[in-house]
Amino acid sequence: MHTARVSTIAFISAAFVLFSTALSAQQPPVPASGAWLDGYREPAARLIGEAMSSRAAWERLALIGDTYGNRLSGSQALEDAIQWAVQEMKRDGLENVHTEPAKVAHWVRGQESAEITAPGRHQLVMLGLGNSVGTPPEGVEAEVLVVRSFQELDASADRVKGHIVLFNVPYTNYGETVQYRSTGPSRAATLGAVAVLVRSVGPPGLRTPHTGALRYSDSAPKIPAAAITTEDADRLQRMQERGTKTRVRLKMEAKMLPDADSFNVVGEIRGREKPDEVVLVSGHFDSWDVGTGSTDDGGGCVVTWEALRLMKKLNLRPRRTVRVVLWTNEENGGRGGLAYRDRHKDQLAGHVLMMESDSGVFRPTGFGFTGSDAGRATVKQIATLLRGIQADAISAAGDGADIGPSVEAGKMPSMSLDVDGNYFLIHHTPADTIDKIDPMDMSRASAAIAVMAYVIADMPERLR
Amino acid sequence: MHTARVSTIAFISAAFVLFSTALSAQQPPVPASGAWLDGYREPAARLIGEAMSSRAAWERLALIGDTYGNRLSGSQALEDAIQWAVQEMKRDGLENVHTEPAKVAHWVRGQESAEITAPGRHQLVMLGLGNSVGTPPEGVEAEVLVVRSFQELDASADRVKGHIVLFNVPYTNYGETVQYRSTGPSRAATLGAVAVLVRSVGPPGLRTPHTGALRYSDSAPKIPAAAITTEDADRLQRMQERGTKTRVRLKMEAKMLPDADSFNVVGEIRGREKPDEVVLVSGHFDSWDVGTGSTDDGGGCVVTWEALRLMKKLNLRPRRTVRVVLWTNEENGGRGGLAYRDRHKDQLAGHVLMMESDSGVFRPTGFGFTGSDAGRATVKQIATLLRGIQADAISAAGDGADIGPSVEAGKMPSMSLDVDGNYFLIHHTPADTIDKIDPMDMSRASAAIAVMAYVIADMPERLR
Repeated sequence: MHTARVSTIAFISAAFVLFSTALSAQQPPVPASGAWLDGYREPAARLIGEAMSSRAAWERLALIGDTYGNRLSGSQALEDAIQWAVQEMKRDGLENVHTEPAKVAHWVRGQESAEITAPGRHQLVMLGLGNSVGTPPEGVEAEVLVVRSFQELDASADRVKGHIVLFNVPYTNYGETVQYRSTGPSRAATLGAVAVLVRSVGPPGLRTPHTGALRYSDSAPKIPAAAITTEDADRLQRMQERGTKTRVRLKMEAKMLPDADSFNVVGEIRGREKPDEVVLVSGHFDSWDVGTGSTDDGGGCVVTWEALRLMKKLNLRPRRTVRVVLWTNEENGGRGGLAYRDRHKDQLAGHVLMMESDSGVFRPTGFGFTGSDAGRATVKQIATLLRGIQADAISAAGDGADIGPSVEAGKMPSMSLDVDGNYFLIHHTPADTIDKIDPMDMSRASAAIAVMAYVIADMPERLR
Repeated sequence: MHTARVSTIAFISAAFVLFSTALSAQQPPVPASGAWLDGYREPAARLIGEAMSSRAAWERLALIGDTYGNRLSGSQALEDAIQWAVQEMKRDGLENVHTEPAKVAHWVRGQESAEITAPGRHQLVMLGLGNSVGTPPEGVEAEVLVVRSFQELDASADRVKGHIVLFNVPYTNYGETVQYRSTGPSRAATLGAVAVLVRSVGPPGLRTPHTGALRYSDSAPKIPAAAITTEDADRLQRMQERGTKTRVRLKMEAKMLPDADSFNVVGEIRGREKPDEVVLVSGHFDSWDVGTGSTDDGGGCVVTWEALRLMKKLNLRPRRTVRVVLWTNEENGGRGGLAYRDRHKDQLAGHVLMMESDSGVFRPTGFGFTGSDAGRATVKQIATLLRGIQADAISAAGDGADIGPSVEAGKMPSMSLDVDGNYFLIHHTPADTIDKIDPMDMSRASAAIAVMAYVIADMPERLR
């Protein structure tokens, strides 16, 4: 019943669109006038109302973290959570619920530690970097050389050999600082370093270490690498500045195992008119092996999934298919996103839009959008439906690590959920847990994604 | 030269005091009028200026934390730091620098861990409680019973046996909440619990565990006990509320060794007229065995010590002796404070005042004072000299764990440094490190203590 009513409204709205398009050839295909949108005010209000009147999204995310904990690729916890999600999506009434296989990286951390061994003996708070090799059982012990930048590393090139290099680079933003984590180990190894420590890539916390992936270069020896806290990095810096020779022992059992079997989880609301045209929303279900991966990126999974659950609950079946994908292996391989691209290469032309939420579910401000000006104009119009929950800003670019390969192959527009929060204080740390997330922010994010995805999937003309 | 000049000023000031006392018998012995204080404006300004024009206090505290790390009673690090402090006080030119022995508790943590073993396997972030017994090598594994209060424990009395009890008590303030850490283990043991977990006593951090001492009752079996983070405590609470039976394994190598030898460190500026009358300022040099004990209580040691260094540097020798004591064993025994009381029992009558700084060195607001109304009036007058650095508030009570025994035995006034900061977020955690402390706050605190101690030690009449 609801579906029929909405269709009628959509039809009237469509008529407005065609009319106004015909009148002005200079306008983008979807007109700047908001008239066509009026038909979506009622379903938008219902989606927002349903989302904002419960804590369902937060409760589901809490359940995932409490029950399965963190979910690194290759772990039983991830596979258990994937199987649970399939069952839950079916219970929600989503359609065509299934998994799609991907071979994923299988790195395991094992026991690990780092300590200052001279002067004195002092435990450092650390997390080995993802993909790192381990150390011999007795560890690697050497004098520490602290550098503040690659420039400083190169200037000290003749002193690197046999040392543990610490990159103590103050956090500015993720993009700028993360290169020391990803490429620092190989750059130091090229100069003869025996191991690398990296100041955690994030703002200062409470002795909070941040893991994350490194990327070995093929031309350098693979040496073990770990993140230490900002506190410990600054301590080693001060000791060096005082002229104190400081030795550190790093012990890591880390190793890369053969690729493991994993799966993307897929669920849908099938389109009532154009089921092969797909609006895809997504998050990644794998996480680092610390905390419970609630912010990175359990929350993104739950709020995009929730968008479909809300439509289903309200009997809102759009013209096109809305598909949710919970990606596997974003953190250390991106194999889920690659598998989707390869498996669906012949259907990518039917993908209207791909969206990923992977910046945490803090206060949603709107969406990033990458696509044509016409598409951007339409998305901006749709976003006006989200003014009431202050999630109506459309920023310059919207992308995601998992949707990237398909977006590139399919030349389609892409979006991401924009949020305002302390993502980089939390993500990749033991503190990435459910309590950092406000239930109302999750409801708002679910509402925003539901409205955006529903309207794009339902509007008469395909998003350009 | 400076000393002579100050003495002259002090003398003039003293004349004012005597004159005005004679005029009005109803006034407290030190007059409410601020006239007597005028002679102290110049030395106060010099002390403040010297403190505020350098980062000496912060740099010293950083050096202690960087070099010696944390300093639990019985550890080599504490004894090394004590010997270093003696040498440093001598280099500063303090007088009568020496150590005074105390037999201290010697508890060692060893390796420890806690994990959920069903459903799934999930590491908990924990710290064993100080003074706890250990577990057998294979650990203690049992189903968890979560309670929110002692009342809830008693109401569940028949379900405690064979369980690990988790006290998940939201933090209100330290005094109210800490009882679950100190007495909770024995209360649960009485009802048959096999181990205890305690929600960390402090506000939520970033998966930050807080250690601290427990106190076993003689009448209950000694069971192992550990603090877990607020995040993990809430996770176990949610699981219980969902009806999930959750098992935890706790492993702790903790044990109490025979008492160890340690020392209070003492240094002085000897009084020029009444050397046997003593104004004592202090902090405790021992810490828990996590972080670097910078806030609890390296900072208190350094700023009280700094008060004497500043006087010495400026050649300000007061009428009475100013003594700094760095106490040993505050955290798990209080034996340093007891040893002082016993050793000096015949000299306590000569103690004018004892002060302790053990609330961290965040923004100083003034002092707590416990003593007579007349004494309070005087202290309030002296505090007016600290208005410029906004450290002039005198609050209702000033005490300290280490000065307590002597203050009680000697019936003397006591003071503490009051500060405004996140003490209970940091203390007893791995995040108790130097970076949490603002160098300027340390300078302000040093200045405030220096001025307060100097004037009390120098004013003609002894503080009532």
